[in-house]
Amino acid sequence: MKIYNEKERINLREIHLRAPATTANVGPGYDIFAIALEEPYDEIKLKLNDSGKIKIKLSGEKQDIPLNPNDNTAGIAIQELLKRKKIRQGIDLQIIKKMPSGCGLGTTGASASACVSGLNKILDLDISNNEMIDIARFGEVASGGFPHADNVAAALLGGFILVKSYDPINVLKLNIPEFPVVLAVIRKSQRTTRGFISYDIGESKLKEQIAHCSAVINSIYTRNIEEFGKAINMDYVAEPVRSAAIPNYYRIKDELLDYGAFGVNISGGGSSVFAICMENQINKIAQIMEKELSGNPNFIKIIKTKVSNLGVTEIS
Amino acid sequence: MKIYNEKERINLREIHLRAPATTANVGPGYDIFAIALEEPYDEIKLKLNDSGKIKIKLSGEKQDIPLNPNDNTAGIAIQELLKRKKIRQGIDLQIIKKMPSGCGLGTTGASASACVSGLNKILDLDISNNEMIDIARFGEVASGGFPHADNVAAALLGGFILVKSYDPINVLKLNIPEFPVVLAVIRKSQRTTRGFISYDIGESKLKEQIAHCSAVINSIYTRNIEEFGKAINMDYVAEPVRSAAIPNYYRIKDELLDYGAFGVNISGGGSSVFAICMENQINKIAQIMEKELSGNPNFIKIIKTKVSNLGVTEIS
Repeated sequence: MKIYNEKERINLREIHLRAPATTANVGPGYDIFAIALEEPYDEIKLKLNDSGKIKIKLSGEKQDIPLNPNDNTAGIAIQELLKRKKIRQGIDLQIIKKMPSGCGLGTTGASASACVSGLNKILDLDISNNEMIDIARFGEVASGGFPHADNVAAALLGGFILVKSYDPINVLKLNIPEFPVVLAVIRKSQRTTRGFISYDIGESKLKEQIAHCSAVINSIYTRNIEEFGKAINMDYVAEPVRSAAIPNYYRIKDELLDYGAFGVNISGGGSSVFAICMENQINKIAQIMEKELSGNPNFIKIIKTKVSNLGVTEIS
Repeated sequence: MKIYNEKERINLREIHLRAPATTANVGPGYDIFAIALEEPYDEIKLKLNDSGKIKIKLSGEKQDIPLNPNDNTAGIAIQELLKRKKIRQGIDLQIIKKMPSGCGLGTTGASASACVSGLNKILDLDISNNEMIDIARFGEVASGGFPHADNVAAALLGGFILVKSYDPINVLKLNIPEFPVVLAVIRKSQRTTRGFISYDIGESKLKEQIAHCSAVINSIYTRNIEEFGKAINMDYVAEPVRSAAIPNYYRIKDELLDYGAFGVNISGGGSSVFAICMENQINKIAQIMEKELSGNPNFIKIIKTKVSNLGVTEIS
């Protein structure tokens, strides 16, 4: 049996994780709903170092992501974790970008979740899921200005997330049928539109919004993709604001619904668009999305994926 | 075989129904949630007559209920049904009051639902549940000024009701575990406080309210009375307005929670108070409610009951 010295022991502690994209809000559930997707995903590698510093490296798809840990979502989450647990520890973080950020797919939150989950494991901290989410969400301030928990929770746990409470953080994960999802990945042109969003939509629309949120939960239990699609197809709160940045959004949405999508909405903070449909409709829906949205100067690609019950997972 | 003449045939067409009390809102679900209760209930008898007129008689508990069909909730619902179906028909309606009205227990809506359901049967009209609810709710204008559908739907169908949409009416019934309910029946002092209710509660409270509505649905599927109780224990919309008419409401609520109730809230338009608790806590919770609320000048009685999946049922 090899006896490791302290330096070697530290070097052993590394972990390689995969963190899924997520779509937050999921229609009417602004800041309280999110789902994990099978694809796309990012990977991260975490390794303890003895420099006492957090060092971030980026590989994979080239992107304009800050490497300073004070500006990087995952870096902020790592620091929050170390502060709360009163740990002084240097960490090498490698983010292997496989998905585009700034598209409303929760990619930065996914890295933050993976870091918190990975450190929980390699530092043997035994942190509860709710606390991990509470830590990971602090990084979200860097991207959206508000520590929303929906994306990080969905990335961490997978499945369908209901944020039951923000104070304290109390998150419910529901296993969800693997409904097919077609994504049109579109980078958003503004940093955040959060400040323009208001619940001041009048009482009758608000009741409808709340009823649709309730119907989303019902549809998951009844495994009814048509009800799920209809329930997530509406949103009086975020969709009207965020669709303003997507030319012809409502016309395209109507076309997708005419061609058999059960529900269409905007992913998270935008500007990606997602559609829920039957398995045998995926190609047709993807074609229409490509035809209608690829002319958008911020369009990146179409992804055919599905809802996934897997959150952050270790890559062996 | 006896051959009936037309007059005899008409006289045969009568029906005797039982319609349950309901508690609407069920905490956070203002105008979109309701549950049916096993007790109390009213009965109605419907009989076709050849006078062409709607005649309402009242028996049972003496109460100040209008007998003019234009002012009576059930009378309005009957007229709405006849108008929609283009039927000219005289009807004798006997309402056998077994529960107090004006307490937020949906008693007038229950009569309206029973009438619509009964006429649907004896006139052989084959009306869908959603249309029956849509017809029955028009009577609600007589009591609350707004044709809310939650009470009438719960009385008609039983179980837990989610009003998914008001336009068109689309109601979902969930079978619900028979959670124990203790009711403190208290007559409300004002006719309606609906006009004082507003959703203008700020974004973070609203998100919490929506999340709690979603948690209510989740708790029904998981058959988790503790989660159900916690989810219905809050309401930022109606409870603050309607509790103002119940002296010491929040102190009493805290006491009930301390003694083991999972959730306490106000039934429908008030002023009745209901508590959800475990079977073996019913007597203690009932005692505390009686001690704390029986001094209220509008207090009527304590009822130990439970949630029921039975709606309007025929009494043979």
